[in-house]
Amino acid sequence: MNGADALCETLLAHGIDTCFANPGTSEMHFVSALDRQPRMRCVLGLFEGVVTGAADGYARMADKPAATLLHLGSGLGNGLANLHNARRANTPMVNIVGDHATDHLQYDAPLTSDIAAIAGAVSHWVRSTAGPDQVSHDARDAIAAAWSPPGQIATLILPADAAWGETNRVVAPATRASRAAPDEAAVRAVAEAIRSGKKTTLLLGDVALRGKALQTAGRIAKATGVRLLAQQANKRLERGRGRVPLDRVQYRVADAIAQFADTEVLALVGAQSPVAFFAYPDMPSTPIGAHTEVLQLAGGEADLCQALQQLAGELRIPRDVVPDVAPVWSDGLPRGDLTVDKLAVAVAALLPEHAIIVDEGITAGRAIYSATQSAAPHDYLQLTGGAIGSGLPMATGAGLACPDRKVVSVQADGSGMYTLQALWTQAREKLDVVTIILANRRYAILHGELKNVGANKAGANASLMLDLDRPELDWCAFAKGAGVEAARATTAEELCDLLTAACAKRGPFLIEAML
Amino acid sequence: MNGADALCETLLAHGIDTCFANPGTSEMHFVSALDRQPRMRCVLGLFEGVVTGAADGYARMADKPAATLLHLGSGLGNGLANLHNARRANTPMVNIVGDHATDHLQYDAPLTSDIAAIAGAVSHWVRSTAGPDQVSHDARDAIAAAWSPPGQIATLILPADAAWGETNRVVAPATRASRAAPDEAAVRAVAEAIRSGKKTTLLLGDVALRGKALQTAGRIAKATGVRLLAQQANKRLERGRGRVPLDRVQYRVADAIAQFADTEVLALVGAQSPVAFFAYPDMPSTPIGAHTEVLQLAGGEADLCQALQQLAGELRIPRDVVPDVAPVWSDGLPRGDLTVDKLAVAVAALLPEHAIIVDEGITAGRAIYSATQSAAPHDYLQLTGGAIGSGLPMATGAGLACPDRKVVSVQADGSGMYTLQALWTQAREKLDVVTIILANRRYAILHGELKNVGANKAGANASLMLDLDRPELDWCAFAKGAGVEAARATTAEELCDLLTAACAKRGPFLIEAML
Repeated sequence: MNGADALCETLLAHGIDTCFANPGTSEMHFVSALDRQPRMRCVLGLFEGVVTGAADGYARMADKPAATLLHLGSGLGNGLANLHNARRANTPMVNIVGDHATDHLQYDAPLTSDIAAIAGAVSHWVRSTAGPDQVSHDARDAIAAAWSPPGQIATLILPADAAWGETNRVVAPATRASRAAPDEAAVRAVAEAIRSGKKTTLLLGDVALRGKALQTAGRIAKATGVRLLAQQANKRLERGRGRVPLDRVQYRVADAIAQFADTEVLALVGAQSPVAFFAYPDMPSTPIGAHTEVLQLAGGEADLCQALQQLAGELRIPRDVVPDVAPVWSDGLPRGDLTVDKLAVAVAALLPEHAIIVDEGITAGRAIYSATQSAAPHDYLQLTGGAIGSGLPMATGAGLACPDRKVVSVQADGSGMYTLQALWTQAREKLDVVTIILANRRYAILHGELKNVGANKAGANASLMLDLDRPELDWCAFAKGAGVEAARATTAEELCDLLTAACAKRGPFLIEAML
Repeated sequence: MNGADALCETLLAHGIDTCFANPGTSEMHFVSALDRQPRMRCVLGLFEGVVTGAADGYARMADKPAATLLHLGSGLGNGLANLHNARRANTPMVNIVGDHATDHLQYDAPLTSDIAAIAGAVSHWVRSTAGPDQVSHDARDAIAAAWSPPGQIATLILPADAAWGETNRVVAPATRASRAAPDEAAVRAVAEAIRSGKKTTLLLGDVALRGKALQTAGRIAKATGVRLLAQQANKRLERGRGRVPLDRVQYRVADAIAQFADTEVLALVGAQSPVAFFAYPDMPSTPIGAHTEVLQLAGGEADLCQALQQLAGELRIPRDVVPDVAPVWSDGLPRGDLTVDKLAVAVAALLPEHAIIVDEGITAGRAIYSATQSAAPHDYLQLTGGAIGSGLPMATGAGLACPDRKVVSVQADGSGMYTLQALWTQAREKLDVVTIILANRRYAILHGELKNVGANKAGANASLMLDLDRPELDWCAFAKGAGVEAARATTAEELCDLLTAACAKRGPFLIEAML
């Protein structure tokens, strides 16, 4: 057995059995080891942004890390943006980055670069393994780090000689760290604030947005009148008919300030205190005013469900209180010209039961989120770090993690272009993903931002940089290139027909919605 | 005027009038400033790998830097691989990377990351500007750094408040640093080695591969019998009929070792001493044996033409010595089944005068390089850092720099997929680029490398990671998606017909060569 074999064994022993990969020469021994391990599912992405984004989507839905296999600093660099997004989501992920053999580094060969520096910018944990006998041990540490609640990005640098060198050392698997018990004083402090009658908002993040934790938060809200809110960007939300509905913190700073205007106490439940995405002249960096006291009910490492249950206990909420839940969708199907709002209604109305929505609709995100509040029960994944190009890969990973669930990937065209190679992986793996491209042919959000920063209307040079027309992108052709069936919708009726048909059958399909 | 205006003014005052861009919110004031500067040509790439690769190709052909405009750490990350390649080529480049406003950084907003760390991995020079009054001064320093011979990657981080803040400071432009005078002792040492009868190889890099420098090297070779050789990977070569022909250092280590087996003295002329691209078990990291003395005639910062002329003077080479040059192409057009060798012959035979070849053919590169030795005079640009995905963007930048020359972009399909978004920029800018996709539907080089590292023939998992079939990529469809006309060649005759037609008219065209 060599170091690469020991790595495969260690990953599999921890239940990590999916490897998103784009290997190069320095990873050939690992590729060869994977060949000897048919239990490992290897999924090729034709660009590393697909690899890392798919690993993010997979882990969000599988609740366990995938491995990625990346080629040196440049392969890692290509995957950097979606690692950034995954880091912001606290997604568990184990990256294996090949490096030159240790003795070869001194020669500064063409592909040599400072891998640790690049990895450090997007990882919670980075280590370069010292040799074949250390590989299994270091892999175990990487997996343990990735699995530390709420989840971390662990990057293990694997020099080629550590992969090809002989070893017989495979360590016993680590036990997964459990979530920390809630801080009882913190729970009492929030309970006290609520009992005192202060206007309180519970800001939910991470697993507080799912299952019994969310249900408990809903009971607290029903009994006490506190407001529930989700973070602006979240790893995963469980939503739809019959579930506790949550508004999100708004993207626009002015809107978010208005949301918190009457909040006297903000209690964080696995969430970060809200921050403006960008700074603007004469705008504050956070929507939370000086009149608001910020408390932490429980941090991301804690058992959020237990924290909410303890809060409910402190507040003596009767067992028979049931939360308000989202009603059954009652609107009809949209008709006529296609708009973002009608597209959102179509998705909400036609969404299959227990689907997964992947939202990188950017400017359309607000409408999609709002309309799908009462759609069939679903999970909702979104862009967490602001680095565009996450949607198509994330849908790919989600589809792999949940082969029995339909994925509906709502994708802006500008950001979709960043990682359109993901469509090929969807075709190869026959994933059950419907992609809806919002073809407005512009970076619509940037037209808004150009105004937000006090700049004028786009002139010739700004239009050149913010508009995607001349020539117009043809997404049906891109899909064909990648082996994915596709069709164009120019009216609301066409969109509904195509979405209905795509949801009725299995396999990838792309709808280019002409807005 | 604000800091962004001062930056535009400073770039333009240095003759930097082309900006490859993919901006975001934090760069909106710079976008607005560009709107007020119609002299600046703004070129949008739909992914930052296109932006940085195009800036590389532009600078290689224009002999001056372009600016890039990138969005925070994630935009920089997306452009990292082609910055790595440009760094290895010593291409001059000025990157403007937007950052959050200084006061906003403490809030760790979603897009916050360690930009300086990411930039440091691919830049010779990095600075974050302190405020609007420093912008022009720092931009001047960045430009001076970029233009330091032989060329550097300079990255200027521009916080949003430095861009939007008022200033009236615009510094006078820097004068371009000239190349250093050659070290006369070094020249004499090489002359002495040649005169002593030692078998000597002149290894040429950078501008020694062009014009009078190359001609002088050819005269020295003709008169003394020294061998000339180009580096394995080069920024730009002037080649073809009537020019001094150069072999390159071979990619395969065993081949390179054979090339240098009888070299007693290796003299570097703006070149690096050869290093194996990758390490392999039981293979040395460099093809240069202990029997070979390595001398440096002149480093990359020196005037290489002057150094070669001084060497010719030391060697008392008569003025009437003329170098051997590549003969006129005499082979006919290929016929029958399409192979890499026939494709190479077709390119050589049909290449327009003074075309620019951009070679990212990977496994086909050797055949292309060899066949085009006697093609019409042309410039030859290639992948320098091994980070695949450079070809389509580089062709885009070369086409922008030289609107009156045909660009022939020979592109492997696997690496082409990394940055296929470049086709859209070619369509938008109506660039005179013919792309030939080598559609072998596999990472052919990795099948070879799998054997090189002593691993077995690809099994199921390895095939999944090294083959691009199932489904097959359709490059004509991708081209249609991006607005570029395309056609497929399945025989040598079809390829010749399509290439002839594409070379006879202006504008982008893609040929999918089915190998």
